[in-house]
Amino acid sequence: MRIEIVAVGSELLTSHHLDTNSLYLTGRLNELGLDVSFKTVVGDDLDTLRIALENALARSGLILIMGGLGPTDDDRTREALALALGRRLVFDPRLYEAVKSWFRGKRVRMSPANRRQAYIIEGGRPMDNKHGTAPGLWMETGLHRIALLPGPPHELKPMFEAAVWPRLERLRRKYLVRRVLKTTGLGESRLEDKIKDLYPRRPDIKITLPASPGQVDIHVAAVSEGSASAAEQKAQKLMKKLLARLGDRVFSWNGEDLEAVVGRILRERKSTLAVAESCTGGYLGHRLTNVPGSSDYFLGGILAYGNRAKIELLGVPEAVIERFGAVSPQAAKSMAEGVRKRMSSDLGLAITGIAGPSGGTPQKPVGLVFVALASEDGVEVFRNLFWGTRDIIKLQSSQKALDLLRRHFPEEKALLLEKRSGGE
Amino acid sequence: MRIEIVAVGSELLTSHHLDTNSLYLTGRLNELGLDVSFKTVVGDDLDTLRIALENALARSGLILIMGGLGPTDDDRTREALALALGRRLVFDPRLYEAVKSWFRGKRVRMSPANRRQAYIIEGGRPMDNKHGTAPGLWMETGLHRIALLPGPPHELKPMFEAAVWPRLERLRRKYLVRRVLKTTGLGESRLEDKIKDLYPRRPDIKITLPASPGQVDIHVAAVSEGSASAAEQKAQKLMKKLLARLGDRVFSWNGEDLEAVVGRILRERKSTLAVAESCTGGYLGHRLTNVPGSSDYFLGGILAYGNRAKIELLGVPEAVIERFGAVSPQAAKSMAEGVRKRMSSDLGLAITGIAGPSGGTPQKPVGLVFVALASEDGVEVFRNLFWGTRDIIKLQSSQKALDLLRRHFPEEKALLLEKRSGGE
Repeated sequence: MRIEIVAVGSELLTSHHLDTNSLYLTGRLNELGLDVSFKTVVGDDLDTLRIALENALARSGLILIMGGLGPTDDDRTREALALALGRRLVFDPRLYEAVKSWFRGKRVRMSPANRRQAYIIEGGRPMDNKHGTAPGLWMETGLHRIALLPGPPHELKPMFEAAVWPRLERLRRKYLVRRVLKTTGLGESRLEDKIKDLYPRRPDIKITLPASPGQVDIHVAAVSEGSASAAEQKAQKLMKKLLARLGDRVFSWNGEDLEAVVGRILRERKSTLAVAESCTGGYLGHRLTNVPGSSDYFLGGILAYGNRAKIELLGVPEAVIERFGAVSPQAAKSMAEGVRKRMSSDLGLAITGIAGPSGGTPQKPVGLVFVALASEDGVEVFRNLFWGTRDIIKLQSSQKALDLLRRHFPEEKALLLEKRSGGE
Repeated sequence: MRIEIVAVGSELLTSHHLDTNSLYLTGRLNELGLDVSFKTVVGDDLDTLRIALENALARSGLILIMGGLGPTDDDRTREALALALGRRLVFDPRLYEAVKSWFRGKRVRMSPANRRQAYIIEGGRPMDNKHGTAPGLWMETGLHRIALLPGPPHELKPMFEAAVWPRLERLRRKYLVRRVLKTTGLGESRLEDKIKDLYPRRPDIKITLPASPGQVDIHVAAVSEGSASAAEQKAQKLMKKLLARLGDRVFSWNGEDLEAVVGRILRERKSTLAVAESCTGGYLGHRLTNVPGSSDYFLGGILAYGNRAKIELLGVPEAVIERFGAVSPQAAKSMAEGVRKRMSSDLGLAITGIAGPSGGTPQKPVGLVFVALASEDGVEVFRNLFWGTRDIIKLQSSQKALDLLRRHFPEEKALLLEKRSGGE
């Protein structure tokens, strides 16, 4: 049985809008072991829409159609599907009552146009819409299973979960479990080299490595024909091997971002943090404060973009900047110590570097970034040479600084290895 | 003539990947007055791919197909199209030389599999790929115009521009010009009310209002059947009316972001800036330093996340915090003055507020944010009540602060009205 997702709406054929609903539906179908064969995007024009649906009926057995169920003249999905199936649209008085009562509940006057929404295709069964006026429709013919869903995601998702998912569960072929390990400190190809021999050579478990600047995730997808727990066990077994191999390169195994991991560690250790940022200009503080409750451990920081700020606010000796430059291990060290002292924090984390596009020299090229962490034990400084545009260099610098902080607490590694056996 | 875009690749049918190439192609087609009727996404399976292409050939006259042109067994697009068209694939020795010479140029050994890429469909004309090994293909039959393009965007775009665009230009129906005005300070519906009567009631010029937190853009799309300059004139005429109506709500008419506008103003005025951030945690500094060359005017700042940082680093009097709280107009004023003084900058810009999700009270709810600007003329303070999640409140706060800075220089308005008559 081929599966097709059809997204209806002329706005989806402009250069601004992508159909994101289909990602959601695809993810849910995959959990049942069902793969999508075709995705189609088509506009509101009745004729074009009818052709797209005729083609879908000819090539696919399960068709999820979304959008174009509203009350306006542009909403032609019901009509087009009726034409493509060669079936009549019939008025459903009970459905009309449901649409009317939705408006009553909202104390909004119903437009006569909404009467359109009370028509269903002969043989179809309406699906309730708790978050909007457009009812959905489920149909089974000898050849097809078809769902008509509303386009707005906050209407589509609850309707899919309540009325489509239970019907699709009967088609379940497999149980699929996805797990994600997030890593930093190794590039995509070096990471792959390190774990390649662990790649399962079986069709029931798969690894993919989506990468972003400073981070490579390991997605494990395990399937079982028997049960969800059997799939879960397969995934866990592989995750244990990956963790044993990668150790503290892995910072998260439950979806947590690096800033959230760092935040959790600081809260658990009752440590406070202050930052001194040069080339990142506030991005490190921004990431740290994206975590709700970060005021428990994040005291603040100093954006020392210019040299004077480094000297006057952070106490970096003028001689250090003159002799070694503002982008130097000495300056980074002094910044980390300075912000720790000024803000009376347990930890001081500093970044200084050249984010580009200009300002680089042969000795100090764009992408040269020093990160330093000051604590009661002293200061650790690391030199990095990043590659990419200004925003990518800022992102990688903040990632490296957060990771330095994470690795400052080595117990975290043991914790990770211990916790992972319990799964999420 | 119906137009269809077909994206080939099983990874596009997972729940992670969206086809973004199609936005690019759609935008370029629209510039010729050509609308897309169908977008299809299909995997690598030969049979499914053939069906998708047969349907495309039956319903569309211009078909842009991308992806699946590589050397591996998963790359079946050429083969599937040949089957769908009922034509043979023929080996092209000259094309083979081109593929080989690409590898020679890169000093990389060619795999025997790359020989596949030297096959073309009978009647097709190869298109050169300067950025990869996969040649493209252009075909015209009595019924169809077809382009086969490589999937990677950095290969697709140059090939499209060099070899497909000139061929499509012959199909040009209209000249389309897009112009964007960016506004802040008015919500979507209030902005629409203000300009609704200026909406053209003609099919040749259209307004859309894409909105994001703290910003509503006005997209003007004008078409002319005669010439690009006629379309440009139509767009300019409407833009003048919109500008006259909206005045300094408009901050950009050439694509510049608010941080870039502010940066340009500060550079032109030779003014220096320092920031004091509480609830935004560095996001304002991050935005300001996303602009290359921002070190010319941005000196740095203080992230005063906790109260002690506000008192000790910014000199906010303890009594102000005790009496009015850290989220108060008095604290905001004191923060702006404090950072201006500490960093010896011409301007001090401060933000203090409650980004949530917790920390709100009935008197001071989540979303309450004060922004203040200190200059030699004194301090301006504004109270805001934003709505949304933590990240949206941070975004809106930074937007408001940047806009306060922009409006501090009233000449900017005259400049805008003067410059706009010259277009971009």
